[in-house]
Amino acid sequence: MTKLLEGKLVTAALKEKQQAAVEALAAKGVKPTLGIIRVGERGDDIAYERGAAKRCESVGVAVQRFHLPMDASQQELLSLLEQVNRDPSIHGVLLFRPLPKQMDDETIRNALAPEKDIDGITDGSLAGVFTGSGKGFAPCTAQACLEMLDYYGYDLKGKKVTVIGRSLVVGKPVAMMLMGRHATVTVCHTRTVDMPAACREADILIVAAGRAGVVGKEFFSPGQVVIDVGINFDENGKMQGDADFAAAQSVVEAITPVPGGVGTVTTSVLVGNVIAAAKKV
Amino acid sequence: MTKLLEGKLVTAALKEKQQAAVEALAAKGVKPTLGIIRVGERGDDIAYERGAAKRCESVGVAVQRFHLPMDASQQELLSLLEQVNRDPSIHGVLLFRPLPKQMDDETIRNALAPEKDIDGITDGSLAGVFTGSGKGFAPCTAQACLEMLDYYGYDLKGKKVTVIGRSLVVGKPVAMMLMGRHATVTVCHTRTVDMPAACREADILIVAAGRAGVVGKEFFSPGQVVIDVGINFDENGKMQGDADFAAAQSVVEAITPVPGGVGTVTTSVLVGNVIAAAKKV
Repeated sequence: MTKLLEGKLVTAALKEKQQAAVEALAAKGVKPTLGIIRVGERGDDIAYERGAAKRCESVGVAVQRFHLPMDASQQELLSLLEQVNRDPSIHGVLLFRPLPKQMDDETIRNALAPEKDIDGITDGSLAGVFTGSGKGFAPCTAQACLEMLDYYGYDLKGKKVTVIGRSLVVGKPVAMMLMGRHATVTVCHTRTVDMPAACREADILIVAAGRAGVVGKEFFSPGQVVIDVGINFDENGKMQGDADFAAAQSVVEAITPVPGGVGTVTTSVLVGNVIAAAKKV
Repeated sequence: MTKLLEGKLVTAALKEKQQAAVEALAAKGVKPTLGIIRVGERGDDIAYERGAAKRCESVGVAVQRFHLPMDASQQELLSLLEQVNRDPSIHGVLLFRPLPKQMDDETIRNALAPEKDIDGITDGSLAGVFTGSGKGFAPCTAQACLEMLDYYGYDLKGKKVTVIGRSLVVGKPVAMMLMGRHATVTVCHTRTVDMPAACREADILIVAAGRAGVVGKEFFSPGQVVIDVGINFDENGKMQGDADFAAAQSVVEAITPVPGGVGTVTTSVLVGNVIAAAKKV
């Protein structure tokens, strides 16, 4: 019987700690606040923004939203970042990317004040993830994978972990973090030859392929723990992961559902990082 | 018949390009110059310094050496870095590490001017390696592994590469660089369970274990290309790698010898980076 690794239990545990931390900050007159910067009106961003705002409110974290039109100039966004950087009432910033193509991703990312970088987008935070120094915050989705594994008690030391995907949001950072926890990590991607074989060998499989259902039956093996980071919508608007959930269920030991899995935990991690940033002020 | 991947051929090819670049810079009145900063009198450092200086001279790159005693304070080293950062005649800096324990590695690393960081030690360079942005220079040893593979014509796309070691000098950066070249990369380390199996599966094996002869017969498989980054000395002062060379020779397709392999190329990469930094001024 395949175990369901539900995000809501992880989130509930995190929420309890977060509420206590928010109360302690309130006693000092500090209200942890997340600034959300969105350029344009992409559906994914709006959905994530809604979820993050709701989660923030549920633990007493305030939200300030900043929206720019899709055709905003790079200078407009830089000015907004400068304003947010200087605003002492904002402790952490979520900036939606990819940015429109008139903007240079690297310039924009690194214009955010490092101490407000609660989603690991600046070079300083990324270097912290790469070196394992613990400096800065890791990208929330990568951190959410680890929170999930930790909550359900999976020891990572010496485990074979295969990561599908090499993005800076999940694949690369989660690989580094797992390596820091003494797992033996293999990173697969679109150019990998015989990806199913590389996946079947894994004790833990992290799926961040970015396409619905691409990870099918031949990727799974008995005893495996599958963390599905994918968020995709079918033609009827139904949310699904990157893994073929039905196929996995008949084989693996445990899997995160989509919806109700990693995504839920990601926003909790984001909120936790805002609180941690507020504590440091 | 196992092929020997000799460093001297790679170095000769690099040298030719470097000499031409040095001449072009001389015509503009620029003499590329490497600053070497060494704290203490560690034998390894002194040997590497000697090799680097010799290689620099052979292509017309100048060297300025700065030595501090083992008990120098962090402030003394920071002052020296400031001096070197401000000196326009120095284009790149090699700083030996690990540093003595009265110094904070992160503080010192990041005190180096990013544009003079020709060995990939600052957070900016490490973030560049991690993101694959190409910003900054990668650690020279990691780059040397790729130069070696490129020179001998090994295509990396889709290849299974196993890296032994997760240091910031070789293991982690070379894993990222190989991933950027579309290899499927597995990183092994001291906590890996059944490392020989993970290594036998690899098309290309990068050995940066840091201990003599720890990679024995059971790690190799026919058709494999082995890049041995190890530099160790036995009780008689004889240099050897991390791989059991004799055992590998009877099995693998190709291997880098030690001495005469990656180490040779590393100093060439260092010199090349000094020249590249001088070109940017």
